[in-house]
Amino acid sequence: MAVVSSPLSEAVQRAAGQALQGALVDLIDLSLTAKQAHWNVTGRTFKTVHEHLDEVVATVREASDSVAERAMMIGVHPDGRVRTVADGTVLAELPPGAVPEDKAVSSITEALAVVIARFRDRIAATEDEPVTQDLLIGITAELEKHHWMFAVQR
Amino acid sequence: MAVVSSPLSEAVQRAAGQALQGALVDLIDLSLTAKQAHWNVTGRTFKTVHEHLDEVVATVREASDSVAERAMMIGVHPDGRVRTVADGTVLAELPPGAVPEDKAVSSITEALAVVIARFRDRIAATEDEPVTQDLLIGITAELEKHHWMFAVQR
Amino acid sequence: MAVVSSPLSEAVQRAAGQALQGALVDLIDLSLTAKQAHWNVTGRTFKTVHEHLDEVVATVREASDSVAERAMMIGVHPDGRVRTVADGTVLAELPPGAVPEDKAVSSITEALAVVIARFRDRIAATEDEPVTQDLLIGITAELEKHHWMFAVQR
Amino acid sequence: MAVVSSPLSEAVQRAAGQALQGALVDLIDLSLTAKQAHWNVTGRTFKTVHEHLDEVVATVREASDSVAERAMMIGVHPDGRVRTVADGTVLAELPPGAVPEDKAVSSITEALAVVIARFRDRIAATEDEPVTQDLLIGITAELEKHHWMFAVQR
Amino acid sequence: MAVVSSPLSEAVQRAAGQALQGALVDLIDLSLTAKQAHWNVTGRTFKTVHEHLDEVVATVREASDSVAERAMMIGVHPDGRVRTVADGTVLAELPPGAVPEDKAVSSITEALAVVIARFRDRIAATEDEPVTQDLLIGITAELEKHHWMFAVQR
Amino acid sequence: MAVVSSPLSEAVQRAAGQALQGALVDLIDLSLTAKQAHWNVTGRTFKTVHEHLDEVVATVREASDSVAERAMMIGVHPDGRVRTVADGTVLAELPPGAVPEDKAVSSITEALAVVIARFRDRIAATEDEPVTQDLLIGITAELEKHHWMFAVQR
Amino acid sequence: MAVVSSPLSEAVQRAAGQALQGALVDLIDLSLTAKQAHWNVTGRTFKTVHEHLDEVVATVREASDSVAERAMMIGVHPDGRVRTVADGTVLAELPPGAVPEDKAVSSITEALAVVIARFRDRIAATEDEPVTQDLLIGITAELEKHHWMFAVQR
Amino acid sequence: MAVVSSPLSEAVQRAAGQALQGALVDLIDLSLTAKQAHWNVTGRTFKTVHEHLDEVVATVREASDSVAERAMMIGVHPDGRVRTVADGTVLAELPPGAVPEDKAVSSITEALAVVIARFRDRIAATEDEPVTQDLLIGITAELEKHHWMFAVQR
Amino acid sequence: MAVVSSPLSEAVQRAAGQALQGALVDLIDLSLTAKQAHWNVTGRTFKTVHEHLDEVVATVREASDSVAERAMMIGVHPDGRVRTVADGTVLAELPPGAVPEDKAVSSITEALAVVIARFRDRIAATEDEPVTQDLLIGITAELEKHHWMFAVQR
Amino acid sequence: MAVVSSPLSEAVQRAAGQALQGALVDLIDLSLTAKQAHWNVTGRTFKTVHEHLDEVVATVREASDSVAERAMMIGVHPDGRVRTVADGTVLAELPPGAVPEDKAVSSITEALAVVIARFRDRIAATEDEPVTQDLLIGITAELEKHHWMFAVQR
Amino acid sequence: MAVVSSPLSEAVQRAAGQALQGALVDLIDLSLTAKQAHWNVTGRTFKTVHEHLDEVVATVREASDSVAERAMMIGVHPDGRVRTVADGTVLAELPPGAVPEDKAVSSITEALAVVIARFRDRIAATEDEPVTQDLLIGITAELEKHHWMFAVQR
Amino acid sequence: MAVVSSPLSEAVQRAAGQALQGALVDLIDLSLTAKQAHWNVTGRTFKTVHEHLDEVVATVREASDSVAERAMMIGVHPDGRVRTVADGTVLAELPPGAVPEDKAVSSITEALAVVIARFRDRIAATEDEPVTQDLLIGITAELEKHHWMFAVQR
Repeated sequence: MAVVSSPLSEAVQRAAGQALQGALVDLIDLSLTAKQAHWNVTGRTFKTVHEHLDEVVATVREASDSVAERAMMIGVHPDGRVRTVADGTVLAELPPGAVPEDKAVSSITEALAVVIARFRDRIAATEDEPVTQDLLIGITAELEKHHWMFAVQR
Repeated sequence: MAVVSSPLSEAVQRAAGQALQGALVDLIDLSLTAKQAHWNVTGRTFKTVHEHLDEVVATVREASDSVAERAMMIGVHPDGRVRTVADGTVLAELPPGAVPEDKAVSSITEALAVVIARFRDRIAATEDEPVTQDLLIGITAELEKHHWMFAVQR
Repeated sequence: MAVVSSPLSEAVQRAAGQALQGALVDLIDLSLTAKQAHWNVTGRTFKTVHEHLDEVVATVREASDSVAERAMMIGVHPDGRVRTVADGTVLAELPPGAVPEDKAVSSITEALAVVIARFRDRIAATEDEPVTQDLLIGITAELEKHHWMFAVQR
Repeated sequence: MAVVSSPLSEAVQRAAGQALQGALVDLIDLSLTAKQAHWNVTGRTFKTVHEHLDEVVATVREASDSVAERAMMIGVHPDGRVRTVADGTVLAELPPGAVPEDKAVSSITEALAVVIARFRDRIAATEDEPVTQDLLIGITAELEKHHWMFAVQR
Repeated sequence: MAVVSSPLSEAVQRAAGQALQGALVDLIDLSLTAKQAHWNVTGRTFKTVHEHLDEVVATVREASDSVAERAMMIGVHPDGRVRTVADGTVLAELPPGAVPEDKAVSSITEALAVVIARFRDRIAATEDEPVTQDLLIGITAELEKHHWMFAVQR
Repeated sequence: MAVVSSPLSEAVQRAAGQALQGALVDLIDLSLTAKQAHWNVTGRTFKTVHEHLDEVVATVREASDSVAERAMMIGVHPDGRVRTVADGTVLAELPPGAVPEDKAVSSITEALAVVIARFRDRIAATEDEPVTQDLLIGITAELEKHHWMFAVQR
Repeated sequence: MAVVSSPLSEAVQRAAGQALQGALVDLIDLSLTAKQAHWNVTGRTFKTVHEHLDEVVATVREASDSVAERAMMIGVHPDGRVRTVADGTVLAELPPGAVPEDKAVSSITEALAVVIARFRDRIAATEDEPVTQDLLIGITAELEKHHWMFAVQR
Repeated sequence: MAVVSSPLSEAVQRAAGQALQGALVDLIDLSLTAKQAHWNVTGRTFKTVHEHLDEVVATVREASDSVAERAMMIGVHPDGRVRTVADGTVLAELPPGAVPEDKAVSSITEALAVVIARFRDRIAATEDEPVTQDLLIGITAELEKHHWMFAVQR
Repeated sequence: MAVVSSPLSEAVQRAAGQALQGALVDLIDLSLTAKQAHWNVTGRTFKTVHEHLDEVVATVREASDSVAERAMMIGVHPDGRVRTVADGTVLAELPPGAVPEDKAVSSITEALAVVIARFRDRIAATEDEPVTQDLLIGITAELEKHHWMFAVQR
Repeated sequence: MAVVSSPLSEAVQRAAGQALQGALVDLIDLSLTAKQAHWNVTGRTFKTVHEHLDEVVATVREASDSVAERAMMIGVHPDGRVRTVADGTVLAELPPGAVPEDKAVSSITEALAVVIARFRDRIAATEDEPVTQDLLIGITAELEKHHWMFAVQR
Repeated sequence: MAVVSSPLSEAVQRAAGQALQGALVDLIDLSLTAKQAHWNVTGRTFKTVHEHLDEVVATVREASDSVAERAMMIGVHPDGRVRTVADGTVLAELPPGAVPEDKAVSSITEALAVVIARFRDRIAATEDEPVTQDLLIGITAELEKHHWMFAVQR
Repeated sequence: MAVVSSPLSEAVQRAAGQALQGALVDLIDLSLTAKQAHWNVTGRTFKTVHEHLDEVVATVREASDSVAERAMMIGVHPDGRVRTVADGTVLAELPPGAVPEDKAVSSITEALAVVIARFRDRIAATEDEPVTQDLLIGITAELEKHHWMFAVQR
């Protein structure tokens, strides 16, 4: 039973809730993946990539907070527990150990591309809930900015 | 093969590396658990508990960064990938859905107590690597401060 | 006669103007209601509720400024005079005197719910004026965030 | 029945309470009047008058908070609800629509003069409650500063 | 060949790319026009107009950065070179020499009106690329705010 | 022999000096009492009460500095040594050990009420030394603000 | 003819106006005297005295602004022109050239004492204009703080 | 009965608790002693000593908070009440009245030396509780820094 | 006898010293003149002129400090006493009472022009003391900026 | 006819005016060129070059403001309109599309070298107007700093 | 003869003093070496290495201050004079002239490794002076963080 | 071979390069000398002198960075290695051990005087390189400010 009563129809609430829950899982794993690369990256441009990855983490952590809290606002409980994320993520896992700079750049570019494609689907899926849709558009804009900045480095 | 050459003996390096990797897994799951409660908590003191949990998250995220980077400094690659954390964590999983305030307080108190006990073991295990030990002592102090503040609420 | 010439058709301008004027009245009374509760609230969690209500006031005051100025931008004069608000408001009036914490929480939750429902109607009514609509979506997101935080306290 | 027990005699408490309640009504309407002019002002010096009026609003909002909370401190509940203000205000209502700059300046000068005169009466009426009197003196000083700055523009 | 691979269809990418390139040219010339007036304005309200124009410049420079970088994100290279802007701009050129305050106000009001009309066309032209559209809506809101503030000064 | 020569008559100096010395003792013990509760408080609203008490400490410490330095300015040496405070205080001593939240709130409300009553006497006693009186009025206003905020929690 | 209409009786206005004009002359010369010593002081504690004197200047400059603007508020034009100050000041002139530290300390202590005595007279002279009186009390408190700090150095 | 359950053995807890309680008493009296000197100091270097003493107070107040809260974390209630401090302190009491600068410097140097010696004993006494020991080491470092700065002034 | 030994020849020192002393007198009277206008200005653009004049005061006060301290650095004692300034100034005295905005603008424009011309002479007179000359060039640049901003208002 | 009357001879004014106008054209095109590269740069060190170019833009924009306003101060109207810049610039145009990092570095190094050479000529041409010359020296210093930082990257 | 009396035994004082003096020489030369590379580095990643080296300088300068002042606290005079450092340093000297980026990275990595090894010896040598030891541990942690960041770039 | 191509003639480049290299050696040793005194100073005014010396260090460190980087800009590699400074410095070496306050003041005054004289020669030697000359003038101004402040303490 929902704690917060939602002014949305059941169908709209369900669609928006699924979009937000999916976004949450994507974003949590993206933040952990970027951190793993942030720590283990090696190579001549280490400093720049190391710090750039932390900017991605900052963006993604704030976005994950926004989608989880947005779910609460429409009467849906978000699930960001580690097993939920590990079971639900579609992102490729980084190999253990050192992550050479080229690998770091290509992995994060690819991970961002995957998440962006899924966010564009969610934007389409929430056209009847403009407040949630607007949040997803805003996050997509930020993810695409990071994607551009890594993509041109390849 | 280690990227960073360590001035430590192999045994000391191994012990410190294990302590730091274990700490990393604990701290990542603790941050996800605290966030899950932060989003889903309900009850009369919601606002205070909601914000208090975010202070825990801030402490724990910074600590996880410190232990992961400390591992790199002694020539050991940290592993903070989601599957590693999901498989390795010893923390109790929160139930899905709403987390009433009493449950939030008792869960986070308990989770902190578990992690603190493990950190005290790691402090003992790193007595031959004083720089790593000093980091673990500092993090334990912060965790115990949060533990006190939640424990007196029960 | 409009001071600022509007690039909008007369119908779109009228619809957007009505939405903004209605929003202005709602928001001014909401800010006064939240202040009244902010001052008169009593009970064990006084401090938290007192400060939380002031966060609502801050949000709502900024939003009322935005909608009034948005009206000017499309060539419509906003009316935020006290008699206009007193006559036009649909919000329930708080009783005089002390406001026990439970009453404060339920009153503000209800007031927010009423205003949110009216903002969702205004979002629908301004679909041909995307700049105004985007402003209303943004304010709704903030109101729904406050609504969630009070709703889970009941 | 008062929530906060007052160390004042009943007569002093009543006089101070009336002074504060009257001040609250004056200040809330003054803030709404200044905002109305802030939004609707037109003319060659628009920018300066528009921003100057917002400085008045900032002063007056902070003052209204101070008098309302001061009432609570002496055991009297303040009433700042919109109907109370609409019924109790003595300020002249601005006409709807555009407010030419000369009209804005003369209206706010006059409104400030009216409120200042009433505050000087309240200073006299609270001579037996020096803490409340000191607050009223401080607010009067700020109102007179704004009054001077508008008066010399005519 | 695009450096950044775009998830958009070719038609949507082309439409969004044209909208962004057109916006870039408009905004760069608007910033140079506002600076020219900022330096050469004369008259009794010089200080206010001089500073107000610099606020327009700040808004417009940030907006030009946003549209150029947005183009990169969807795989289109922006062109903000001086000859491209000089050849492509539709804004009226200010006369050389002193710009009396009335001329400054009417010129910038008109320039803003022209650019706003073109942005509203671009909002319509990007309805299939919601992330770009949202950026254009946001910039239009800011331009319309400046337009209002200058328009009421005439 | 006074280090600083005072422009006051001996009687006025003596009265003001006694008022300030009495205020100093009250305020030092009030700060220590509030700190004792700050550290030892327990209960469901621990976090709020713990932080609220520290706001009281901040106010009171600054006030104690002001009264001690004010004494110096009129040629009287303040005495804030621990034995002077222990011997001269009229505040009730907290019991050792845990301070449940209700006890913390009632104790600090009572302590504030006691000190406020004594400050009101001192305001009356310094009517011939308006600079000292104004300081005492200002501190009383701050103490009464804290008193209100704790009193409504009971 | 007064630019700002005053709500005060002519006698009260005249008394307050004279007090403020006298205060203005005192404060301007005090600021110039303190600056002269600030630049020309010599001796082992140069750095401390040099900086301490600038704190006096900061206090006094702000106070001179306050009294001059307060005069405007009650309908009296302040006169802070250099010849007015040179002709009207009662402060002892520093000798030209180097100011040894002991001379700097004794001169500023004496100058502060003279000004403080005159401010206490003005406080008495404005008892029927409580807003002006409150300003004079506040400035006296600050001057007496500086006086104490220099007096104990002798 | 302890509110917070401690992971320490009873003996370690007792030793650490005694060290922290002793430290608390030392630090509170040291802060009051430094404040007493801060207010009453006289002499040619008054300004420097006055401000230097307040830096000691800031260090010591923060340290006293840390030791009291550390006690809570290990399940021991700190006692910082004024009578406890007055009865338990070992610091020499300053004489009443003026404190000439040389006396201020020698008194605070001596007081710091006494407290430092006691802290070094506590560091030895807590070698089995490394988190508490690390806190005591950190405070000792700060106290020794102040001690050096006063000691070289004699 | 100079307190600070100068590495300059006597002739260069004398020339630079005269330039700096002359600059000091100009700047002090300019700051007092600008303040006099700042307080007494009236008219429709009061707010802008009032604040603009205070920017001049800030520039000029900082410049007067720089020239006085520069004199000390080359072994010459600056003289900024009120009688020295009153006797030595060449600036026109403002009339007492209200200063209509046009008068304020023309007076300050003229005063700045006079001082600028004298600074250009001083730049020429210090060509053998490049450090002093550089300071005078820097101040002239700032004065000419203010001069432009007032000159275009006529 | 000049709005601002200049204290300079006609010849000096003309020479300085030409130097400033030439500088303005150089700097505006340099800022647009640097922005074009900032947006379109690609390659492994994208992030660093992208941000470094924006530091150049910040320097150059501030410098262009300074030279344009300096022209006004000496009675010459600056011309920074887009066609003036497009017709007058001597800088090489970047090719459209992607700018590989090596190309970005060499292009900006060359553009800075060209502008620096022209500024050194202008420094020589303004030796009779030391205030303008000092501004040009200051800007040259900043341009040479950026030049060094790009030159060593080739 | 020691200026500051030390509570340490002579042997402990001597050991700690030698450790601190050795650390001071290491750190001063490390800061000069890093600055030399900071200025002379060349190559494609110049900007990143240049700034990274300045972060090392900031860390090392603060550390050198800490060890020198720590020596004073235990009664030992630190010696950081240039000839002492030049004679005592064990660090390899950089060649004069340009420092290609690879050389800069390998040189600073090596220099950090040498200093770290010596700090670990000093940590062992100060086990009987825990306050000094704790400082050395803290500095070692910071040096190892920089070492990691340079080592992974090779 | 120079890394950065210089627009200067060989003779001008050589002269400026020598001036900058000489300045660098002076400034580095001056910073180490001031730090040595900062740490070892003793006496009644320790605190003031200790902090004043650190202001000198801050000025000198920033100046040494400026001259070294200025050398790079004109194509000359600066040499700030410890042996270069030890061999090239002309400053008197401080004796080891405690530095009584009078000795500290006279030593730093003398060292500043020596460096200032050499900077004045360098200003003369760079008259054909106005950008470098302007930097040297600026640094000289700052050194002379510190020199004055220490010189008047003797």
